[in-house]
Amino acid sequence: MEKLTILLISLLLIFIVSRSWPPLITFKLKLKGSFEQHNFWFKSKIDHFSEIPHHPLDPLTIEEIKRARAILFSYRPLSSTFPSIHSLTLEEPYKSQVLGWKNGDPIPPRKAFVIALLNGKSHLVTVDLGLGRVTRHEISSSSGYPMLTLDDISKAVEVALLYPELAESIAARGVALSELVCISPSVGWYGPNEEGRRIVKVQCFSSGNTSNFYMRPIEGLILTVDLDKREVVKFSDTGRAIPVPRAVNTDYRYSAQEKPPEMRQLNPISLVQPNGPSFSVEGGHVVKWANWEFHLRPDPRAGMVISRATVRDSETGELRSVMYKGFASEFFVPYMDLDEGWYFKTYMDVGEFGLGALASSLVPLNDCPNYSYYMDGVFAASDGGPYIQPNVICIFERYAGDVSWRHSETLIPGLEAREARRKVTLVARMAATVGNYDYTFDWEFQTDGLIQVKVGLSGMLMVKGSPYENVQTMPNQEEISSTPLVSENVIGVVHDHFVTFHLDMDIDGPNNSFAKVDLVKEETLPGESPRKSYLKPKRHIAKTENDAKIKLDLYKPSEFYLINPSRRSRLGNPTGYKLVPGGTAASLLDALDPPQIRSAFTNNQIWVTPYNRSEQWAGGLLTYQSKGDDTLAVWSERNRPIENKDIVLWYTMGFHHIPCQEDFPIMPTVTSSFDLKPANFFERNPILRIPPAFEHDFPVCRPSSENKNKY
Amino acid sequence: MEKLTILLISLLLIFIVSRSWPPLITFKLKLKGSFEQHNFWFKSKIDHFSEIPHHPLDPLTIEEIKRARAILFSYRPLSSTFPSIHSLTLEEPYKSQVLGWKNGDPIPPRKAFVIALLNGKSHLVTVDLGLGRVTRHEISSSSGYPMLTLDDISKAVEVALLYPELAESIAARGVALSELVCISPSVGWYGPNEEGRRIVKVQCFSSGNTSNFYMRPIEGLILTVDLDKREVVKFSDTGRAIPVPRAVNTDYRYSAQEKPPEMRQLNPISLVQPNGPSFSVEGGHVVKWANWEFHLRPDPRAGMVISRATVRDSETGELRSVMYKGFASEFFVPYMDLDEGWYFKTYMDVGEFGLGALASSLVPLNDCPNYSYYMDGVFAASDGGPYIQPNVICIFERYAGDVSWRHSETLIPGLEAREARRKVTLVARMAATVGNYDYTFDWEFQTDGLIQVKVGLSGMLMVKGSPYENVQTMPNQEEISSTPLVSENVIGVVHDHFVTFHLDMDIDGPNNSFAKVDLVKEETLPGESPRKSYLKPKRHIAKTENDAKIKLDLYKPSEFYLINPSRRSRLGNPTGYKLVPGGTAASLLDALDPPQIRSAFTNNQIWVTPYNRSEQWAGGLLTYQSKGDDTLAVWSERNRPIENKDIVLWYTMGFHHIPCQEDFPIMPTVTSSFDLKPANFFERNPILRIPPAFEHDFPVCRPSSENKNKY
Repeated sequence: MEKLTILLISLLLIFIVSRSWPPLITFKLKLKGSFEQHNFWFKSKIDHFSEIPHHPLDPLTIEEIKRARAILFSYRPLSSTFPSIHSLTLEEPYKSQVLGWKNGDPIPPRKAFVIALLNGKSHLVTVDLGLGRVTRHEISSSSGYPMLTLDDISKAVEVALLYPELAESIAARGVALSELVCISPSVGWYGPNEEGRRIVKVQCFSSGNTSNFYMRPIEGLILTVDLDKREVVKFSDTGRAIPVPRAVNTDYRYSAQEKPPEMRQLNPISLVQPNGPSFSVEGGHVVKWANWEFHLRPDPRAGMVISRATVRDSETGELRSVMYKGFASEFFVPYMDLDEGWYFKTYMDVGEFGLGALASSLVPLNDCPNYSYYMDGVFAASDGGPYIQPNVICIFERYAGDVSWRHSETLIPGLEAREARRKVTLVARMAATVGNYDYTFDWEFQTDGLIQVKVGLSGMLMVKGSPYENVQTMPNQEEISSTPLVSENVIGVVHDHFVTFHLDMDIDGPNNSFAKVDLVKEETLPGESPRKSYLKPKRHIAKTENDAKIKLDLYKPSEFYLINPSRRSRLGNPTGYKLVPGGTAASLLDALDPPQIRSAFTNNQIWVTPYNRSEQWAGGLLTYQSKGDDTLAVWSERNRPIENKDIVLWYTMGFHHIPCQEDFPIMPTVTSSFDLKPANFFERNPILRIPPAFEHDFPVCRPSSENKNKY
Repeated sequence: MEKLTILLISLLLIFIVSRSWPPLITFKLKLKGSFEQHNFWFKSKIDHFSEIPHHPLDPLTIEEIKRARAILFSYRPLSSTFPSIHSLTLEEPYKSQVLGWKNGDPIPPRKAFVIALLNGKSHLVTVDLGLGRVTRHEISSSSGYPMLTLDDISKAVEVALLYPELAESIAARGVALSELVCISPSVGWYGPNEEGRRIVKVQCFSSGNTSNFYMRPIEGLILTVDLDKREVVKFSDTGRAIPVPRAVNTDYRYSAQEKPPEMRQLNPISLVQPNGPSFSVEGGHVVKWANWEFHLRPDPRAGMVISRATVRDSETGELRSVMYKGFASEFFVPYMDLDEGWYFKTYMDVGEFGLGALASSLVPLNDCPNYSYYMDGVFAASDGGPYIQPNVICIFERYAGDVSWRHSETLIPGLEAREARRKVTLVARMAATVGNYDYTFDWEFQTDGLIQVKVGLSGMLMVKGSPYENVQTMPNQEEISSTPLVSENVIGVVHDHFVTFHLDMDIDGPNNSFAKVDLVKEETLPGESPRKSYLKPKRHIAKTENDAKIKLDLYKPSEFYLINPSRRSRLGNPTGYKLVPGGTAASLLDALDPPQIRSAFTNNQIWVTPYNRSEQWAGGLLTYQSKGDDTLAVWSERNRPIENKDIVLWYTMGFHHIPCQEDFPIMPTVTSSFDLKPANFFERNPILRIPPAFEHDFPVCRPSSENKNKY
């Protein structure tokens, strides 16, 4: 017995010693805590059913949408036949109210702004949720209609599918009704033919043997549908000779792939934050990270709105205003094909469909890295009732292996400096699936004060059926490049993308000026210098809107500053931010071409307007089928004063897209970005005091238990 | 006793159960293996003293450099007075030899190409290491001199420091000799005054109370030094009235920062690969990753050379040629100031100093993420002897939270697809510290076949002393923007950067053509279409060099393709890659300005030349003080045929830089990039079959043991 006792005591001591090895204990505690859950770091998501607004710009809650709907229901002028609701969102308080509000103050009265359609008329309605009544109601006289609802889209397709000649036409092409998938592109405006009624064009595809029906167009089959009468008003069927392209190799689902790629497999790689992310999201919408604070909200039309972006001064600790509001105001996508089924494809995705209404629920771990925070969209449906679109925005910290500053120094005796600071940023991301195209929007905040706005284009091409299987059998060989064959019987139609951002910059307050600094070539006088020429920056302050309508020119370069003339740095420079353009393709359509008239906001790449509460949407409040009478270009014809005023900067990013085989059957993401960069805003660079990374910052990791058995 | 026994047995069982919990055991094993070492993943670095070449393009080894030097020493024409060695590198075998070589073949005869300077003459010498003798020796008749050696630079400063009037001048300005730091900018060429002898200009700074002497220029003090006679040939001292700027707040070392930044601290974040990286580096230089294979080597002049970049066809498994050789050929940096101390600052950093000679040893964890592989440079010193510059290149995999493709689908009944693929890439990076500026170069390879080449500008500004402390006291208020005050007495001088890449693209073999596809606005005839205009791509194949000299124009857009006319895709499209420009600032200096004559390779943003073994360096083989008689622009005057030939694409990225306060006292990295993008190269997009990330791909991490106590 004694021997057993000694043995047991010895064994126990051995286990106690090994067991108390500190890292293992800590590890176990952590495992039971948050580490096992690292992909779901932010578990306590908002309960939208009990949510209340905390900030003047918080979007309407479920309760508020319900209340707005109830008030509308009891509002006599609209209640006999309840209209379809095309937009029901927060009516933002006046800018002065928002600027005057401080955390802890009661928030200003909550109002809903409603765009409703009844008997072909657009009603603009303000519902005061506090007073419980409609406080404004006007019928728009604009040429355009409100955004299509998801209901409009599905009803248009229903109407088309019931059209008798459709069945015959698709049968003649060998497509089964069961595999038919139809979409409803918007129509634009092309003269009086389709005026005075809401119209869409319905176009169909075959989903036989593939998820990727977009690669199988039924070419030349277009049904023009009156949305309100619910009838086909025109049936165009011209492409029966064009085969429906094959399904083989088009399915994009991972589960449908039959063979692995001919490349070395990649080992898992991920961003890891063992102590969790460094940002917080307060009250559901106020994001705080490093030196940045801003308000972030999903919006059914803009997709994502950044408001009140402020940055803490690295010297004084003061929280300083950079931007009052920034968002994608319009997205113009003209295709370059004159055919009956194509000429009208000149989309304005923001005003016609809404980036938020079509926002994707982001795919965790793939659309956004682990340690992301996801924000839901709470939107109103066409019956005015609320719904939740989950995970439409993600917020995450990013380290991409880049350097925010570096220097090596060897010239000082006794001092060898090798300094480098890693670039860690904060990204707010959303993605909208507008039919075939998937657009991603990133707003990326840097510790040096820079904001980078990035747009990514992915998804699938909008393709055209073609009788040809090989370019060498196509006639007009010299024309081939204008109709790029991307697969057998599939042409990738050339098109452009233009996304116009509304950037209400408030550098240290609302009143700013726009300064264009030209880099001008100066020539020296004979004998003046060994040099014959040099560049000299020359600054021009824009007095009125016309001074700030800018087409970029690489051989007449300029820089573009928003400055606050009444706030100066220690050195006397006005504080400022600079717009650094990127994605600089310009729209080249004729200024009198109908789509260009409607999207005349792309006539210039930069515009500056005085702040006007009603001028939010570059293509007009009511964009659908509009004639272009309410665009940025029209507002700006007044040539209003913009010097030392509350001004708004508009920047249009552009992409030309000539497709190629690599865009088939899916399209690798193409991105471009522009920067808003501090320029004499800080007294000095704010990143110097940020520490480098040290060995002890790096976590110790093991493969997840599932994965470790695989390798 | 029995109670004790039971207690002991119970305790033991508890410990056994908890101790044998499988993840903990695994974890411990891993800890003892590689995981603790994660930042030093690649431990088995090359032993350069026993290294032998494995590939025709492997750089010279230590042994080979020693042998070349020994052969030179016994070579009668140079051995009486041994010359200074300005370059001693691999003389690449003929392209046909390299293309004919396969892994396992004996490598072609090894040769060294030497540029040596003796009595003011540049000797171009080929040393055959196998034959043990000099096989070519010619004296250059070019106007230029070889790259400066580190020896030249230090000797120039020595000579200047001994110049008697210097001491007096700096004393008059209150600067102690002990805190003096001098640099030796290159001089350019400005007419006959400084011809026929090697010259540098020496310029000095005060390092008193700061590591960042660059912010403390001693303005107007320039010593022109004859490098070979070792004497000051001109002493210019015009700026005594200009104070040396203050040191306060300029030190950039993290250890010198006194207060933390006014921002929330960031938690650690890192890229983690629990199973290690997915790439391998074979024989020290052949990198294999995903579908890519390429040869990578440090080069004293170009910094980093990518050779034989090949990509595996995702359909057939064939390894296909994309690029024979790519590197930074020249880097032109003209400053825009006519002063005696400034007009000559029109650097050509590659040919004058060498990006590899000035390559930084990269700072692990900060310059490059963990799991990086580091490659050393083995270079020759000015005495011909070898030396090792450690860690000049890093290679790492990157996941930046981006998406290489995404799509959501809701239109197919019964199928809801949400697909997204993360973008994981491979980066090869180097950084060169050219005085104040730090340049980083990234070659990033994507699984979809795209190569992105990125240049980053960081370090510190080259600043000019000024009598002014505040812009509001400066005269000519309207001129202020042309001399930006970035701190008290400190002006950030306006300048440009142009980096010209040599891109010897071999799309599926050497013989390629250059196709320019213009996007041309077409107008419709009345009644032809509801549209008035559309864009039509029109392709032009360049016949000769003049057809491919291109200035970019945003309002006359074009795309630029390298195609292989004799290899066609299944659809009949010629296989190709497209150059997607970025960093598009153009040089605006007068074409007859001396620096522009020497850097005439920036007259166009794109050039295409027939392959010519001797045309590697856009500014000429001997760049220093050259008159521009050996540039890309001169070679290209012959207007040679380039259709269906072995051709080289030259692309120049440009940056205009108007400094601001945020560039003081350090400069946040500014980056631009251009893409080489497959266009009808693959039959279809190759990324489709790459798997998404799954939960089990994500590691389980804990803070490092040091760090966990901190938080």
